[in-house]
Amino acid sequence: MSDEKLIGTSALDATSMQAALLLQGYLTKPAGSLGRLEELGVQLAGIYRSCPPPVPRRPMVVVAAGDHGVLAEGVSPWPQEVTAQMIANFLAGGAAINVLADEVGAQVVVVDCGVRAVFEATPMLHTVKRAEVTGNIYVEPAMSEAVANALIGEGRRFASEQASLGVDLFLTGDMGIGNTTPSAALIATVTGASASRVTGRGTGIDDRTLAKKTAVIEHVVSSYRGDRSGATELLSRMGGFEHAFLTGLILGAAEANTPVILDGVIAIASALMASLESEAVVGYLIAGHRSVEPGASIGLAHLGLEPLVDLGLRLGEGTGATLAVPMVRAAARVLAEMATFDSAGVTEKS
Amino acid sequence: MSDEKLIGTSALDATSMQAALLLQGYLTKPAGSLGRLEELGVQLAGIYRSCPPPVPRRPMVVVAAGDHGVLAEGVSPWPQEVTAQMIANFLAGGAAINVLADEVGAQVVVVDCGVRAVFEATPMLHTVKRAEVTGNIYVEPAMSEAVANALIGEGRRFASEQASLGVDLFLTGDMGIGNTTPSAALIATVTGASASRVTGRGTGIDDRTLAKKTAVIEHVVSSYRGDRSGATELLSRMGGFEHAFLTGLILGAAEANTPVILDGVIAIASALMASLESEAVVGYLIAGHRSVEPGASIGLAHLGLEPLVDLGLRLGEGTGATLAVPMVRAAARVLAEMATFDSAGVTEKS
Repeated sequence: MSDEKLIGTSALDATSMQAALLLQGYLTKPAGSLGRLEELGVQLAGIYRSCPPPVPRRPMVVVAAGDHGVLAEGVSPWPQEVTAQMIANFLAGGAAINVLADEVGAQVVVVDCGVRAVFEATPMLHTVKRAEVTGNIYVEPAMSEAVANALIGEGRRFASEQASLGVDLFLTGDMGIGNTTPSAALIATVTGASASRVTGRGTGIDDRTLAKKTAVIEHVVSSYRGDRSGATELLSRMGGFEHAFLTGLILGAAEANTPVILDGVIAIASALMASLESEAVVGYLIAGHRSVEPGASIGLAHLGLEPLVDLGLRLGEGTGATLAVPMVRAAARVLAEMATFDSAGVTEKS
Repeated sequence: MSDEKLIGTSALDATSMQAALLLQGYLTKPAGSLGRLEELGVQLAGIYRSCPPPVPRRPMVVVAAGDHGVLAEGVSPWPQEVTAQMIANFLAGGAAINVLADEVGAQVVVVDCGVRAVFEATPMLHTVKRAEVTGNIYVEPAMSEAVANALIGEGRRFASEQASLGVDLFLTGDMGIGNTTPSAALIATVTGASASRVTGRGTGIDDRTLAKKTAVIEHVVSSYRGDRSGATELLSRMGGFEHAFLTGLILGAAEANTPVILDGVIAIASALMASLESEAVVGYLIAGHRSVEPGASIGLAHLGLEPLVDLGLRLGEGTGATLAVPMVRAAARVLAEMATFDSAGVTEKS
């Protein structure tokens, strides 16, 4: 796939997971009473290869941004310049993701994966752009396979570099007017779900636009004659630049034994692409929340992931993923800090 | 009800709520795209009587503890001394609530509402005890109406004092071996749900114990001849000391215009009692999570509350409530800190 040799994702560390599972039973709480937090703690032990797992204190939200040629088909009521305007808003700190990331102590980095605008360089902006907008997937491929591979490689390199600099938890974010359309197409193609089931109202569209969007996705999916298990081919035919970069980011994070909290449909479509390259990657994924977009639930079910939060969000940017960060930390801290029945002198149940 | 004059709970501030609702539409996000976080922001504006609402930075988990005479009927596999042992664990910082509260910057206070043990005085422990254990509600009242009223008054005073000292968000916690039994009885009596529907496995009981517990609750509920809308009478017949204190805490918090995040069934039973005294109190409540205990969902539905988190917790102590704190802060900060379409120069959708 990417232009580098795939070093491959390891399976989660079974020894650390087994130790965490045992420890859950000794801590001063009825066994299983912390529900999904207990499972999450075991998963973190497996990812970080340590029991107790470390508590992630340097999370990073990677907001991958791209523009979409399919906007010409009228799939969104928002004009294309909003992608660039929102990037400016992210860089100025005024968007929802800035506020929500700050609340959980997460750094925000914006990645220009291919946006129709030129931005002043800042430490908050990373640029990997090969083109300013994808091809209109209704009538042509989104990008060449060479570009798809290059962006996957950029994502992998970025995750690897940031992990080596101390980032201990990645959150996927996204920005790109029209990007729920390629997301839905990718999810439908991989899962086999129909266009009408995966297509949603994105950031808010009326019935007429929804019908048009569904027809576009139906056409893109049904006319695809390529390999349904090849991420590069799928991304080049119907993806977005941000999907290619996030696919690489997820692969690179897993290779660096670092968990990834997924946000909504863009992240989930990218996770499906990453899982086509490496099944083991799924063990490193945490579903942050259940987006209102119908394709999100279909994609999560296909990946076998159950989200931590379900509050009806449909904003993107990584906002839903941030809400899960305190839960991830709590799950790790329970294993690291709680007393055992023995150490606290608490009688166990008969 | 309580021995002081009830000063009464005000309705939420409609002007601040209306301002928050309008503001949600100007911020740089599609209207409604932050889902329940937007509703929560509006509720906080109403509670704190200010738009944007302040961001709660001094939350307190109030772990109300009590012992239960009904344990003689074999409703739990845990021995009564575990209540006191767990209080020692809380005071030493080794329990789940210590870890989870610390993660969200919440102070933990333990209230001895009536536990069969003597504890050394510490600033972390507040004592309001009138007796060491409730009457066995299978055969006798839990406490006199005078004791129920006294504990309600203690809870109200405590909330009022702590709010005046700067606590800006209360979380209900609890400890008491056997306390899901009086909780289920109170919930069944107020909602009209059958004993079998409200009774759960608490911290983990087998089928035989579950049958016994259900029969005890069925008997307590069906033999009640008192007023189903009087909190004092209900608490004295079938409550726990911690329920009486938490009823007062909830009333006192609402009187001080301070939100309360509810944990599980003990909190929900107490919230039902508080709502009998003052319907307006419900506006000040935030359902932290959906406990596995079946009575929790029945009680929440009766109160018209939808929980923020659903991770299969059934531990109590206030653990589920802590998970909602970052969401409450995020909801307030969105209103306080996000840019508007105008200020950020972002084009609105057509």
